[in-house]
Amino acid sequence: MLRQLLEKKSLVVAGLMSGTSLDGIDVAIVRIDGCGMNAKVQPLHFESFSYDEELREKLKALCSVEHSDVAQVCGMNVVMAEKFAEAVLRTAELAGMKMEEIDLISSHGQTVWHIPLADAANAYLPKSTLQIGDLSVLAKRTGRPVVGDFRTADMAVGGQGAPLAPYGDLILFRDAAKGRILQNIGGIGNCTAIPAMGETARVEDAELIAFDTGPGNMVLDQVVHELSGGQLAYDADGAWAARGKVQADVLEQMLAHPYFAQLPPKTTGRELFGKAYTLAWLAGVQAQGLSPDDIVATATAFTAHSIARAYEAFILPRMEIAEVIVSGGGARNRTLLAMLQALLPQQAITTSDAFGISGDAKEAILFALLGNDWIHGVPNNLPSATGADRPTIMGKLALP
Amino acid sequence: MLRQLLEKKSLVVAGLMSGTSLDGIDVAIVRIDGCGMNAKVQPLHFESFSYDEELREKLKALCSVEHSDVAQVCGMNVVMAEKFAEAVLRTAELAGMKMEEIDLISSHGQTVWHIPLADAANAYLPKSTLQIGDLSVLAKRTGRPVVGDFRTADMAVGGQGAPLAPYGDLILFRDAAKGRILQNIGGIGNCTAIPAMGETARVEDAELIAFDTGPGNMVLDQVVHELSGGQLAYDADGAWAARGKVQADVLEQMLAHPYFAQLPPKTTGRELFGKAYTLAWLAGVQAQGLSPDDIVATATAFTAHSIARAYEAFILPRMEIAEVIVSGGGARNRTLLAMLQALLPQQAITTSDAFGISGDAKEAILFALLGNDWIHGVPNNLPSATGADRPTIMGKLALP
Repeated sequence: MLRQLLEKKSLVVAGLMSGTSLDGIDVAIVRIDGCGMNAKVQPLHFESFSYDEELREKLKALCSVEHSDVAQVCGMNVVMAEKFAEAVLRTAELAGMKMEEIDLISSHGQTVWHIPLADAANAYLPKSTLQIGDLSVLAKRTGRPVVGDFRTADMAVGGQGAPLAPYGDLILFRDAAKGRILQNIGGIGNCTAIPAMGETARVEDAELIAFDTGPGNMVLDQVVHELSGGQLAYDADGAWAARGKVQADVLEQMLAHPYFAQLPPKTTGRELFGKAYTLAWLAGVQAQGLSPDDIVATATAFTAHSIARAYEAFILPRMEIAEVIVSGGGARNRTLLAMLQALLPQQAITTSDAFGISGDAKEAILFALLGNDWIHGVPNNLPSATGADRPTIMGKLALP
Repeated sequence: MLRQLLEKKSLVVAGLMSGTSLDGIDVAIVRIDGCGMNAKVQPLHFESFSYDEELREKLKALCSVEHSDVAQVCGMNVVMAEKFAEAVLRTAELAGMKMEEIDLISSHGQTVWHIPLADAANAYLPKSTLQIGDLSVLAKRTGRPVVGDFRTADMAVGGQGAPLAPYGDLILFRDAAKGRILQNIGGIGNCTAIPAMGETARVEDAELIAFDTGPGNMVLDQVVHELSGGQLAYDADGAWAARGKVQADVLEQMLAHPYFAQLPPKTTGRELFGKAYTLAWLAGVQAQGLSPDDIVATATAFTAHSIARAYEAFILPRMEIAEVIVSGGGARNRTLLAMLQALLPQQAITTSDAFGISGDAKEAILFALLGNDWIHGVPNNLPSATGADRPTIMGKLALP
């Protein structure tokens, strides 16, 4: 069976992603012709599945030193594999496909711990990362071969095992003539800048710049939640922000946060721009007498300006960029996109959907690409993004 | 590279075993021609490496719910892979082999938790098992492909993921004309009974009987340790036992333990025959005035009789057995072997060394067989031993 799989030039792959936000599982079924830089992807079907609240609580406990233990890791490794299997089986059903039509499943796994840099004080906490969702259980339940558990391989050759997204951005969105920035606006904003690359470019030639730009929707969503008395989870279409006026002095204070001056590569998260940050900021601007409309507008501008300034500081001096392709929840915020366009008049602001790649599905498609490369025997890490010493094949294969 | 590997009819495989006793790592380099029931094994080199005390303490903590957490599992998964890599590299060096001469590494991993039956009260503790020692880290460090992490696959098809040893016993020691029992005498005694099987027998035809016979050296070693004031760890060659006289009434009392009447399949461990059991027994016989020589002789007879009676109760009524092949530390205890021979006059008692397979290396060789089968694409579990619903391919492959 494995021999036959290795001979195929075109594979139907189900890519699975379950993010650190612990919200659920994304499954993208795609057809991939070729591999590496020459992979051509045709999206076939995409589904998202939410974890139930009990499972999310269990995962949260597992992701903390205080509430986890070895028995839970052991058990949840199988529990998550069963969930992944259910998600793939259901996606195939909704796509009207038989499981036999899927050549390969490629699964990121659920990250429950990540140590990007070795703990100098403890030799038993080296650089390491732990994704659960046993590959064999997933393979036996679905009857399909499974590649997964990618990140440790990149770490073993000197990388940080992250970010992996720029590799997918490179394969899916590079252009021979145009420099492009892929801007994801999820809770956190992160970008991959890809210079124009000739048709014959190799992965090794890719001089990408990738980093977290700062908060994506994290601050804005929290603000909207608070100002709506818990009624709204986000500013749909950016309609609320469109009614307000950006307060320039408040905005400048926000942009003075030291994170924005830090040189890339850099990553951020809830530690810096989480609920504590937002509630303190909100209390301050309310005390200054800002209206709710102006507060939402200014919080939206915070994301737009932090992105545009990051480009001006760290990307545009080093490469020409013709297009910015936005994905994630932020791509549906029209006010945010309009602000970005105003700040970046030289670049066309567009969304990944315009390229036939749903922004929601982008990450799951990335993992389909990584598994496809494993089968073709070509390296699937991107040293310029992860800091690895060399290209290498990430992932393990389990047979059904 | 993978394609070339799949084409090979003969592989040099480094099998790695690190047992639940947390004592260290065994590495057996073997040449294997063919696969499955037709695998022919030629041992090339064997080495054992002990864990240092600090690592052992860290592992002990990791193997307990009270002292473990997710960060430790994450870190130790890489720490153990590095140890395994060191062990393989050093073994190749001692064998005078270049790493390129080794086609494949096959690693059991270090078991840190095992849930053989689902916890009915907790859906998040299903049947599961956790072996650490990341396969990708091991592959990248050694530059060789690695198969490992076998047990979850057997569990996914209804098995208990254990015992795996009977499969190796079957491949290495079955005979067309003679029924054989493989008796391992480690801390615990365990046996695999293999009936005479024709030359064309398939794995599915193997009607093996495998179970733990009871204490192996566990009680005896503790007794010797206590009676020697901590000077001796075991009774070398059985010399001490040879000086004493077995006390029949004391022995019968010991054999009345309910474990021995329990029907196979069954397993036991420190819970039943550990330090607490032994110290209580020792206090009793010392109070009765037994001499140290007689105590050691009686403890030795306890192991011999429990083994022989288990055969008489559970194996000999169901199959003809011509030979008993002993391995493990107990194979070096001449008094124990002589007692076994006296109790089983119809069977020839011998050791695995007589078959060119070092008893110490047997388990590491088993894992070499399991990895070899993976590459050949043939099932490598033994449903009659693990309780699995069907034969399946266990293990995952990581590339260098």
